[in-house]
Amino acid sequence: MSTETAFLDDAASRPVLRLMPGRDKRVKSGHPWAFSNEINMTPEARALPAGTPVRLEGDDGVKHGTWLFNAHSLIAARRLSPDPGMVLGSAFFRSRLAECLALRDRLVGAPFYRLVHAEADGLPGLVIDRYGDALALQANTAGMDRATPLLVAALRELIDPRAIVARNDSAVRGLEGLKEESGLLHGEDATARVREGGLDFSIDLLSGQKTGWFFDQRDNRARVAALAKDATVLDAFCHTGGFGLLAAQAGARQVTLLDRSEHALALAMDTARRHGFGESVSAKRGDAMEVMEAMIGTGQRFDVVVADPPAFAKARKDHPAAMRGYARLARLAATLVAPGGYLFMASCSHHVSPGDFTDAVAQGIARTRRHARLLATTGAGMDHPVHPLLPESAYLKGLLLHLPA
Amino acid sequence: MSTETAFLDDAASRPVLRLMPGRDKRVKSGHPWAFSNEINMTPEARALPAGTPVRLEGDDGVKHGTWLFNAHSLIAARRLSPDPGMVLGSAFFRSRLAECLALRDRLVGAPFYRLVHAEADGLPGLVIDRYGDALALQANTAGMDRATPLLVAALRELIDPRAIVARNDSAVRGLEGLKEESGLLHGEDATARVREGGLDFSIDLLSGQKTGWFFDQRDNRARVAALAKDATVLDAFCHTGGFGLLAAQAGARQVTLLDRSEHALALAMDTARRHGFGESVSAKRGDAMEVMEAMIGTGQRFDVVVADPPAFAKARKDHPAAMRGYARLARLAATLVAPGGYLFMASCSHHVSPGDFTDAVAQGIARTRRHARLLATTGAGMDHPVHPLLPESAYLKGLLLHLPA
Repeated sequence: MSTETAFLDDAASRPVLRLMPGRDKRVKSGHPWAFSNEINMTPEARALPAGTPVRLEGDDGVKHGTWLFNAHSLIAARRLSPDPGMVLGSAFFRSRLAECLALRDRLVGAPFYRLVHAEADGLPGLVIDRYGDALALQANTAGMDRATPLLVAALRELIDPRAIVARNDSAVRGLEGLKEESGLLHGEDATARVREGGLDFSIDLLSGQKTGWFFDQRDNRARVAALAKDATVLDAFCHTGGFGLLAAQAGARQVTLLDRSEHALALAMDTARRHGFGESVSAKRGDAMEVMEAMIGTGQRFDVVVADPPAFAKARKDHPAAMRGYARLARLAATLVAPGGYLFMASCSHHVSPGDFTDAVAQGIARTRRHARLLATTGAGMDHPVHPLLPESAYLKGLLLHLPA
Repeated sequence: MSTETAFLDDAASRPVLRLMPGRDKRVKSGHPWAFSNEINMTPEARALPAGTPVRLEGDDGVKHGTWLFNAHSLIAARRLSPDPGMVLGSAFFRSRLAECLALRDRLVGAPFYRLVHAEADGLPGLVIDRYGDALALQANTAGMDRATPLLVAALRELIDPRAIVARNDSAVRGLEGLKEESGLLHGEDATARVREGGLDFSIDLLSGQKTGWFFDQRDNRARVAALAKDATVLDAFCHTGGFGLLAAQAGARQVTLLDRSEHALALAMDTARRHGFGESVSAKRGDAMEVMEAMIGTGQRFDVVVADPPAFAKARKDHPAAMRGYARLARLAATLVAPGGYLFMASCSHHVSPGDFTDAVAQGIARTRRHARLLATTGAGMDHPVHPLLPESAYLKGLLLHLPA
């Protein structure tokens, strides 16, 4: 297919959609979304193919620019540009991606980062992670799904990557009427490496969690590693060992990696062997909270404990159970911290706010009767920017605590 | 006076206060405060001198440890220790301070930091800042005011400082029935220096804002400096120039310091001269927002803009005006950012929550019609820990934004 015609976009004959009378406040305030009940859903609008570029105008005739439209999604339109005549061709995507690239190269330094983070980067619904000369792309909206050929062409021009993988297996695609599907968009080899803090981690872009690596915790891994010299470290929910192995690299005396996934632990231990960590790194397989309960029973303690579980709240209704889960995990993790040690806990649940997460962790720690200092409240690194009017999209919450005695 | 008898404390004969029936939930959950309506205020309790150590017990006989009591304060009791028999002598304070010292030396490295940050450090109401061999102390509760001789003795043993200054001029002392008063507690010279990022700043411990320097912004100054190489920088509300001069040190092409205080600007320019910054640093005196309006009118733009104003909300009732103020400041500051530049904005208003501050800034920027990426949501550095059950005491909020075009 021709990448130039993926959208069949023609700014001059682009459909015009109107906001409902009295429902233009959000869009006028600069919000990048228009909900389906804010748009006048004429039969013509409903008939537009999902992901069609449209001009959005107010009932008062105010022009709100170029948006990508999907009549079947609650978030029916997402702004691409305040310019209603913006041509959505290769040049547009190349320019947006070039700007994302320049910003990451400046902020991160090495070519291992989230290159595109959706609305905050002016590319709504699109996520691209960069692993040196390999890229993993997630198109979470119909518009970005249709734009994928243009994006691949632009990425090849800008970066000339060895491989581009589509990781379109996120459940949010269902909200846009898109199938979950993954595969190579360019190149032949979906394996890659991440270099971070002096270590090389092996990644499988097609089968790992998310796009293969959690770039969002880069700064938090560095914070923990800075406390790890000569320490004993427990990395609970370690996945492929990012926190624990970077602690080992920073001089930890003993690192225990804990996860229920045999595959993830095998990858982590392979990384440990490649870097010659020897006996200082060991793996424990099991349900993290059950193993932690057992460790408490046998009196094991660690100078640094990391607890970075998968999202406890996958949906809004999970909120109460997630709060109990975080409190329980905090109680277990804090109990395992040796006197004068540190605890890092994280939540990637979209449905648990930063304040709620802090409250749950504080309550869990209070149950241990230990005094604790909250040293830092953190989020994702700067390669995961947030649109200022979508603060709730800052999903990652991290808490670093000191437990004196 | 004998430092050992400042409290006339005797754990054995320490008064016992009881929580009201059904009002022990907060204290049982580990909260470090008991409010006056939670305590059974007998005539004997009311007669206790402000700052008296007491044992706090529940109506159910549960022992809640040793607290400092002030019948005249809304926060009537503050927990010092879960041990009801804890002796509050020199050894107690020396041990607490030694632990604070060891943590800061590990977390910060150089001896310029907040040594004690109140409840989070187990010393409720006490703030101590360290400027190398000089210390500034704020006792914001009657208990800590009475403990000051013990604290001075312990600090002399641990650090042997050249000077210790009391900066007891905070308005919160009024809530405890304490006078505002400042002066030397030890030594003869209240001048000091802060070394940060390779620069020396001169400080007057007795006459500067707060205790003389804003340690809480250390990490944020480093974040801004990392973006400042070859940049033009505006440091609005610059006080003694921390942000701007560290940007100059990091290689900024041109730094404009803006403040209404002639004295603060003179200190900043003196620091600039001492470090040989020459023409690359200039000072502009005036009301920051008025000067920014004028700069917008003349088309001036900066690659990096810092806007770190004094608290806009000094009391809860100021909240709406503060929100308007932050939105206006964000609009002005964002307008002054050159295409592709950065904006750092901060709020130290206790009465404006992190979420509210982000909202106000987002609204102000949206009015400029510029796209913005929120790169980082920050707080104070790790030498300003927070008690996990007092998350609202994390007063400092910082936002780092990128404005592409």
